Amino acid sequence: MKTILIKDIYRQTEKYQDQVITISGWVRTLRASKAFGFIEVNDGSFFKNLQVVFEENLDNFKEISKLTISSSIIVEGKLVLTPGAKQPFEIKATKIEVEGTSDRDYPLQKKRHTFEFLRTIAHLRPRSNTFSAVFRVRSIAAYAIHKFFQERGFVYTHTPIITGSDCEGAGEMFRVSTLDLENLPRNEEGNIDFKKDFFGKETNLTVSGQLEAESYALAFRNVYTFGPTFRAENSNTARHAAEFWMIEPEIAFADLEDDMELAEDMIKYVINYVLENAPEEMEFFNKFIDKGLLERLDNIVSSDFVRVTYTEAIEILKKADAKFEYPVEWGCDLQTEHERYLTEKVYKKPVFVMDYPKDIKAFYMRLNDDGKTVAAADLLVPGVGEIIGGSQREERIDVLEKRIEELGLNKEDYWWYLELRRFGGTKHAGFGLGFERLIMYITGMSNIRDVIPFPRTVKYAEF
Amino acid sequence: MKTILIKDIYRQTEKYQDQVITISGWVRTLRASKAFGFIEVNDGSFFKNLQVVFEENLDNFKEISKLTISSSIIVEGKLVLTPGAKQPFEIKATKIEVEGTSDRDYPLQKKRHTFEFLRTIAHLRPRSNTFSAVFRVRSIAAYAIHKFFQERGFVYTHTPIITGSDCEGAGEMFRVSTLDLENLPRNEEGNIDFKKDFFGKETNLTVSGQLEAESYALAFRNVYTFGPTFRAENSNTARHAAEFWMIEPEIAFADLEDDMELAEDMIKYVINYVLENAPEEMEFFNKFIDKGLLERLDNIVSSDFVRVTYTEAIEILKKADAKFEYPVEWGCDLQTEHERYLTEKVYKKPVFVMDYPKDIKAFYMRLNDDGKTVAAADLLVPGVGEIIGGSQREERIDVLEKRIEELGLNKEDYWWYLELRRFGGTKHAGFGLGFERLIMYITGMSNIRDVIPFPRTVKYAEF
Repeated sequence: MKTILIKDIYRQTEKYQDQVITISGWVRTLRASKAFGFIEVNDGSFFKNLQVVFEENLDNFKEISKLTISSSIIVEGKLVLTPGAKQPFEIKATKIEVEGTSDRDYPLQKKRHTFEFLRTIAHLRPRSNTFSAVFRVRSIAAYAIHKFFQERGFVYTHTPIITGSDCEGAGEMFRVSTLDLENLPRNEEGNIDFKKDFFGKETNLTVSGQLEAESYALAFRNVYTFGPTFRAENSNTARHAAEFWMIEPEIAFADLEDDMELAEDMIKYVINYVLENAPEEMEFFNKFIDKGLLERLDNIVSSDFVRVTYTEAIEILKKADAKFEYPVEWGCDLQTEHERYLTEKVYKKPVFVMDYPKDIKAFYMRLNDDGKTVAAADLLVPGVGEIIGGSQREERIDVLEKRIEELGLNKEDYWWYLELRRFGGTKHAGFGLGFERLIMYITGMSNIRDVIPFPRTVKYAEF
Repeated sequence: MKTILIKDIYRQTEKYQDQVITISGWVRTLRASKAFGFIEVNDGSFFKNLQVVFEENLDNFKEISKLTISSSIIVEGKLVLTPGAKQPFEIKATKIEVEGTSDRDYPLQKKRHTFEFLRTIAHLRPRSNTFSAVFRVRSIAAYAIHKFFQERGFVYTHTPIITGSDCEGAGEMFRVSTLDLENLPRNEEGNIDFKKDFFGKETNLTVSGQLEAESYALAFRNVYTFGPTFRAENSNTARHAAEFWMIEPEIAFADLEDDMELAEDMIKYVINYVLENAPEEMEFFNKFIDKGLLERLDNIVSSDFVRVTYTEAIEILKKADAKFEYPVEWGCDLQTEHERYLTEKVYKKPVFVMDYPKDIKAFYMRLNDDGKTVAAADLLVPGVGEIIGGSQREERIDVLEKRIEELGLNKEDYWWYLELRRFGGTKHAGFGLGFERLIMYITGMSNIRDVIPFPRTVKYAEF
C-alpha cells in the first residue's frame, strides 16, 4: 500500500478520512497500558505528529508497547476524526511493523535540552521540535529567495568559491592548498613557491561574489548569487560563523533607490512566503522562542521601510537619551547598539541608512557629489541591527581608479573589474544579505550556530 | 518613463505595440548611413535583441552613428510591428541617450571567437550569444531543481563546505587553513600542530554532503543538498573541474527502486522546465552547438529509462561488436566507452546500471543478499555516459561496521554516522548529480570550463 505523508493528511484530511492508510515515521512519544497505547509519530514531512492508537488485538502488541523513542515504524490503520480531542484525528492501527529500533541511550529523550547540548548532537537535533522548525524554515526561506529572483527574471550566477585574487577586501581569508606542509616547495628567492600549488598560485576561500556578479549584471542586467562565503575572523560571538551563505543581487541600469526598493521587496516577499508556507513552525517560534515574533514580522511586511541619511542618523543619535558604549561622531562606523536604537526606539521598523562617509566603506561604492560620502545603504531591522549592506557601484573609471590608488590597492589586480567600466559600463547597484542573519531574524533564534545544520566557528568544525 | 524589458516586449507584444516606450541595453551591432541607422540592442533580460531604427532628426545622430559595440544606451521611441521583416518589430527612436561608451579595443567584436579565447575574458563572455544562452540555461536549470524538490516537500539542506573529517572517501581534498606557512607550529612530537589552526584541527573542502544529508533524511524523510563540492584531482580533461556544484537528494523509508524513480522524474522535470522556459536558447544550441540536441532531449523526456544489472551489462559488453580500449570482465569498473556503448548503441536511451560489485563501490552502499554486489545504480545517458551515481545505503549497523573494517577505515571517525543506524534507522537511499554534467548534457557544450562562470581547474584560478 502506498505510504501517505502526514503533511498530506493534515492538509487534505477529507481525502483520507475513514480510509485505511499506511504511514511510516519515527516514534516521538509512546504511552501504553495493558490493553492499549498511543504513539505520536512524526514522519519528517510535517512539523506536527500524528497520533496512532493501538490495542491488544495487534499480533505484536507487547513489542510495540515497549518501543523506544525514535524507533521507526510502518503503521496501517484507519484514519478517524476525533472531534473535541487535542489532536484533530488519529489512526486506529491494524498493523504496526518495526522498521528500526532505537537504542536506550538515545540522547534526545523527552526532557528539555539546552541548545548548547543539542549542538553536540548536530546529526540528531533536527529531530527535535525546535530544530525541525528551524531547518524547515531555512529550506523554505532559501526557496523563497530563488522564487523571488527567478520570477523577476534574475539570472542565478554561481560565482567562484575558490578565489585566486585577494581583492575583495572584505575580511581575513582561508588559504586553499594542496602543498605538502612537511615539504613546502621554495623558489629561487627562498619563498614558498605557490606555482607548485594546485592552482599554480596562492588561493583562498571567497568572502564575496560581488565583483564577479557585477560582470554578469553587465551582461544579464539582473543577477543574483546564493552560495557559501567565508571569514577567517577570530570572532567567537553568537552572530559570527566562519562559513555562511550569502545572497548578492546585482542590477544594471539601476541606482541606489532601485537597490533599496529591491531589498525591501525581497525581505517582505521572503517573510510572507515563510509565514504562508510554515505556519505551524512560525507559531511554534512565536510561542516558545520569541514571544513578539509574529507581531514584529507582520509589522515589517506591512510597513514602508524608512530611509534616512547617515548624517541625519548621527544627528539623531547624538541627541538620543541613551547611553552608548561607543561614542557617536560623524565619520564613525555605526555599532549594533546605534543601529538597534535607530530601528527599535526611533522608528520601530526597518530603516535604510544611506550615504555613509567614504572612509568607512569599500572602494567600489559610488562617490556622491559631496566628495565625502558614498551611495551606500545598510538595512537595519529591529532585534538584529544590520541585515543588508548595499551600494551603488562606482561606474566612472577615473573615480574608481583614484579610489583604488588612495587605498593603496594594486590596480593590476582589478584589471577585469576596471574593464567593466571601459566596455559599456552603466549605473549599477547591488547588496549582500547574510542568509543566516535573515533566518535568525525570521525564527527568533539568537545564536547563528543554531540556524546552520553543521556550523563552523573558531576552533569548531565537527561532523 | 519606466524602462520596459525586451523579454516583456517579445512575450507581450500586443501590450506595447504602437506605444512610446523606453528601453535600455547594450549595442550588439550598429549599421548607419548618412540619413538613418539600425542598432541591435540586447538588454540582458532576453536572448534576442531588439532592433532600434534612428534617423537624422535625432539631436545626437552623429554621435549615435559612431557608437562602438557594447556601448550602453537608453532609447525612447515607438514600438512598431514590421510584418515580413526578419525581426517581428522595431523601435523608431525619438531619443537615444548614451549611458556608457565602449572603448575600441573591446575584445568581443562581431567576428567568431574560439571558446578557448573566450575563457580568457570570462568577465565578458556572457555577453556573447553562446555564453548568454549557457548561463541563462544554467540559472533556469538550477531553479528547476529547487522547484522539483520543494514541490515534493523535500528540505533543502546546506551541508558544510569545510569539513573536519576525511571520511567521505570520494577523492583527493583541498586543505583549508590559516596557519602561517613560514612559521608552522609544531607539537612536542615535532609534527605540525593543527590544534593551532583556525578550527583546532586539520580541515578540508568537502567532496560530498551525503553523510550529513543522511542524518537530515532521518529527521525530515526527504532532503536534498545543492552546493559546491571540490576535488583536488590532477585531471586536466574537458569533464573535470576542481570546483563544481552537486545535487544530493536523500530519501528515507525508500529503497533503490524509489531512488531510481526519483532520479528519472527529476531529470525529466529539469529538461522539460528548461525546454519550456528557454526555448530561444535551446533552439540556438540545437542549431549552432549540437545538431541532434533537441531530438535527444525529447527522446529522454518521453522514454522510460532502462534498468539493467551490472552483471547483465557485462555480458552484453562482452558480446559487443566494438573494440574497447579497456577490456571488460566482471568486477571491472565501467569506463566511459562502455557506458556510452550501452546507452548509445544498445538501448539508445538513458540506462540505470544496478547492483555493482561491492569492491568497486563505496563502503556505505547496501550489501545485496548475494554478498558480492551492492544496491547501487548509476544513470548513463547518451552523449555523456554516467550522469548520476546513486545507491541504497547500508542501514544494518553490523554489516556497515564490517565494511568499514574490511576497508581499513577508522570506525571512530564514523561515530555519528553509525549512530544513525542505532537510533531508529530506516531503509534509505540517495544519489548525486553533478550539476555541470547536467548542464553540458542539456546545452550540448562539450567542455566543463564553458558551463561554469569562472572555472577552477588544475593550474587555473583566474578572476
